[in-house]
Amino acid sequence: MKSYLFAPGPTPVPERALLKMALPIMHHREKVFENIFTEVRQGLKYLFETKQEVLILTSSGTGAMESAVCNLFSPGDRVLVVRAGKFGQRWGELAEAFGLVPVFADFPWGEAAVPNRIAEILQGDASIKGVLIQASETSTGVMHPIREIAEITSKREDVALVVDGITAVGVFELPMDAWGIDAVVTGSQKALMLPPGLAFVAFSDKAWKMAEKSRLPKYYFDLKKHLTSAQKSQTPYTPAISLIVGLNEILTMIKNEGLDEVFARHHRLAKATRAAVSAMGLSLLAKTSPSDALTAAVVPEEIDGVALKKAFLERYGITVAGGQDQLKGKIIRIAHLGYFDPVDMFQVIAGLEMALYKMGYDFTLGSGMKALEQELA
Amino acid sequence: MKSYLFAPGPTPVPERALLKMALPIMHHREKVFENIFTEVRQGLKYLFETKQEVLILTSSGTGAMESAVCNLFSPGDRVLVVRAGKFGQRWGELAEAFGLVPVFADFPWGEAAVPNRIAEILQGDASIKGVLIQASETSTGVMHPIREIAEITSKREDVALVVDGITAVGVFELPMDAWGIDAVVTGSQKALMLPPGLAFVAFSDKAWKMAEKSRLPKYYFDLKKHLTSAQKSQTPYTPAISLIVGLNEILTMIKNEGLDEVFARHHRLAKATRAAVSAMGLSLLAKTSPSDALTAAVVPEEIDGVALKKAFLERYGITVAGGQDQLKGKIIRIAHLGYFDPVDMFQVIAGLEMALYKMGYDFTLGSGMKALEQELA
Repeated sequence: MKSYLFAPGPTPVPERALLKMALPIMHHREKVFENIFTEVRQGLKYLFETKQEVLILTSSGTGAMESAVCNLFSPGDRVLVVRAGKFGQRWGELAEAFGLVPVFADFPWGEAAVPNRIAEILQGDASIKGVLIQASETSTGVMHPIREIAEITSKREDVALVVDGITAVGVFELPMDAWGIDAVVTGSQKALMLPPGLAFVAFSDKAWKMAEKSRLPKYYFDLKKHLTSAQKSQTPYTPAISLIVGLNEILTMIKNEGLDEVFARHHRLAKATRAAVSAMGLSLLAKTSPSDALTAAVVPEEIDGVALKKAFLERYGITVAGGQDQLKGKIIRIAHLGYFDPVDMFQVIAGLEMALYKMGYDFTLGSGMKALEQELA
Repeated sequence: MKSYLFAPGPTPVPERALLKMALPIMHHREKVFENIFTEVRQGLKYLFETKQEVLILTSSGTGAMESAVCNLFSPGDRVLVVRAGKFGQRWGELAEAFGLVPVFADFPWGEAAVPNRIAEILQGDASIKGVLIQASETSTGVMHPIREIAEITSKREDVALVVDGITAVGVFELPMDAWGIDAVVTGSQKALMLPPGLAFVAFSDKAWKMAEKSRLPKYYFDLKKHLTSAQKSQTPYTPAISLIVGLNEILTMIKNEGLDEVFARHHRLAKATRAAVSAMGLSLLAKTSPSDALTAAVVPEEIDGVALKKAFLERYGITVAGGQDQLKGKIIRIAHLGYFDPVDMFQVIAGLEMALYKMGYDFTLGSGMKALEQELA
């Protein structure tokens, strides 16, 4: 059976990147690799919309999240953690693991953070040193209002806005410098269309200043050491060479398409997917601000979401994501970030229709596809 | 120009692994990947010669070294660091970064650690909680006597022997359980013949017991969490999927060749390489216990080692490693760990002869090749 991947990471890897990564391995301390690294550094600045150095870590995205925590803060520091899904929880776990004191701003899973609430908490607690948040909460398919929150944190010299952009960077607008974000983190297996194994982190001037005072222990994720190396197009430890070779290919693709067009494509696919699932009578989990990275659709009450995900895979070879933790069995998540175009969406929406039809869900067969085509036309 | 890689990591990747890794990416939470992971777990136990779970980290080898430090110890703990090269220094830096108190056992670069000295230090300091050492010090091409040192540490319930096996595991004998080693670390880009990006760590029962008491902060490298996931053929965070697919192929190759034959092959190539460079009048940096992973040859005084490395690359497309830190310009390092056979050694020894000849070194052209062929015959 053929395989089709529609989970929000890992996402499909373009063939031209797969083939580049299959070339014989090169040595990372040689000119040929340094030249690639120099190009990659430029491409990452374009992607992050920053003049800062974007550091490349050999780790999953969680490693880059950890690097932000252990380079910015010290034991006992209070940080505001926005928690509206599984990855908001992860910020909280990371903060606790490193002896920080998280102050939680909880929002229902499926809703976006409310900037006023963040502003109130910060106003009421002058000791808070950071706001940890997702730009796109992958577990719920919701975007948080980073621009508005950055306006609040920008006014405070002692508060860093730390954004998990793992399903946001390269998906939709998140200009680091223009919005005044202090730390942006992402991973390779999302909009960057690569296998997992690389993670990225960039710090603002404010964040680098805060890093001077951080007293948490660090070595592998010591970002000052990574910065010094990066400025010489090197890494302090052996990097995931083949993935960086692939990254260069991907960044060229993104530059050729143009970041604005990449964002517009993601938006078109997301909007059409949302229209399609709505036309089939499924509601969106995102009450407001659905993320263009993925669509989280609530599975009809009479249908078992776990069985639906299984039917997708077993009947059609299509992998979608289910719900995590409290959402298990209640939603399915369809990705459109990365190497996706309208034809891919035909596959997954028709697959969804057929899987639901076979499971006895009462709806007009073809209604989803009609809406999808109308939107994409 | 064609390229030939003879540095002690990254080492050449077999074509069949490159091609497997170029297949479309799969999702890590699906059965097909879990099946691969289950096979890989078995293969890693065979490779490490252990009944313990070998944990797979998405990082360079340094990340796995860090994981051993931050999971075994607590701030203020005293650890004995064997320092006889750049990677011994790294253990010291790691220990200091995490607030441990390193007690250094220094040996000249090019010499092996002396077990009696380790025993004396341990006897004189009952508060020491660990011995951090390399099995093969990659910067000097020297093996440390792990078996003898393990006999010493095995007698102490409160001392963990932590071995960096980055250029040792899969190169020569290092049976974790039989020798009583408490932590073994390695990376993917050495004897495992893969691109860099994966690292591995296994703990003995004693080490897991010590880990219960560790108070250093950890999250990404929290090995207890990795163990729980690994037992279900999963990882706590998205792993470097494509590299694990390649790893399965490599472990199959190693099993088919047989670990003993892999060790014997490395030994044959190393012995012949040592004979060849000696026949050309070059001395070995390793006064005792040369590692079968690589040969570190002292460059003749009248020859500039940096220029020799450059000539190798520019004339013949051959990458060898030079000396690091205090050995810069003084040695060249030729790898024979991983995907190497006698024919590969023809290339690098003939290349060395020609590069030295062109640089005006006074020796009998062909003498190195003659010795190499004699040894391999």
